[in-house]
Amino acid sequence: MRVLGVDPGLTRCGLGIVETGAGRSVSLISVSVATSSPEAETPDRLVLIADAIDAAIDRHRPDAVAVERVFAQHNVRTVMGTAQVSGLVMVAARRRGLPVALYTPSEVKAAVSGSGRADKAQVGFMVAKLLGLDAVPAPADAADSLAIALTHALRYSATPGAGTATTTAQRTWAEAERAARRRG
Amino acid sequence: MRVLGVDPGLTRCGLGIVETGAGRSVSLISVSVATSSPEAETPDRLVLIADAIDAAIDRHRPDAVAVERVFAQHNVRTVMGTAQVSGLVMVAARRRGLPVALYTPSEVKAAVSGSGRADKAQVGFMVAKLLGLDAVPAPADAADSLAIALTHALRYSATPGAGTATTTAQRTWAEAERAARRRG
Repeated sequence: MRVLGVDPGLTRCGLGIVETGAGRSVSLISVSVATSSPEAETPDRLVLIADAIDAAIDRHRPDAVAVERVFAQHNVRTVMGTAQVSGLVMVAARRRGLPVALYTPSEVKAAVSGSGRADKAQVGFMVAKLLGLDAVPAPADAADSLAIALTHALRYSATPGAGTATTTAQRTWAEAERAARRRG
Repeated sequence: MRVLGVDPGLTRCGLGIVETGAGRSVSLISVSVATSSPEAETPDRLVLIADAIDAAIDRHRPDAVAVERVFAQHNVRTVMGTAQVSGLVMVAARRRGLPVALYTPSEVKAAVSGSGRADKAQVGFMVAKLLGLDAVPAPADAADSLAIALTHALRYSATPGAGTATTTAQRTWAEAERAARRRG
């Protein structure tokens, strides 16, 4: 399954695409950050981001789109642009018949690191680990979009009836921690 | 000039179209309210509203689109949907090469009634008056979308160099008040 994860934003919008493979492996297909200048008019900024979203879907043909769920309580200065971009993502996906999943930041953190209160560094570390990357993707919007895509990919690539409470992410995190202790 | 005014909302989205004529007259072309069920999934609701916006533009071919400017401080429960829909309007308009104007609620009230603190009844009354309608358009989303369209139409149909501080709306309102006093 191929998943487009979107970290919505008007100034920077992370677009990360991952694909699940054999044995619950997940690989990186593409990651990019669409940008628009805060000095441009909002309608034109929205079109730039909408075009980048459409292009990511049409080029990489994901099977599903996962978006960070936006709350009004968040950063008031940027929340309107974030909400607007999340709406554009949902419409772009549904108009192409793709399922859309919304995940809260805590759900994303829990899915990739095993803890809903993981910090940015832990999330970035786990994104790199799960995708077999040498470095944490930058900027943060890129890593976050991949974390959102991974959240959906890990959930839906779970073996049916495996009957374990430990997720791939949790196991990978535990192994990484053990390895770090050995090195330390 | 033909203007589409949009009162953005996820449950109810007002779509009002007005056209300026000779002698600064403004007439009603169409008004409707697109709706989506709060019980449906957000992505599907957004597509319903986006389709209605696209249909209004493609059917009535406005020269400009005016949208209420949304603030994060407003009603927290509905602001996210409102922001998302306003983003869809802006992208639909700009992708068709149409200018987009944003007006705050105070600007709309001031433009149609002469006071930024006018109440709903005054705004509805003036919308009916300016468009020569027998009754105030209902529901409120319909009247509000027309008020937004009128705000843009009145501003851009102003005679260049007329050099008067009194707007059409203000004169119409003053005449209506005088008529009401005569009746009273």
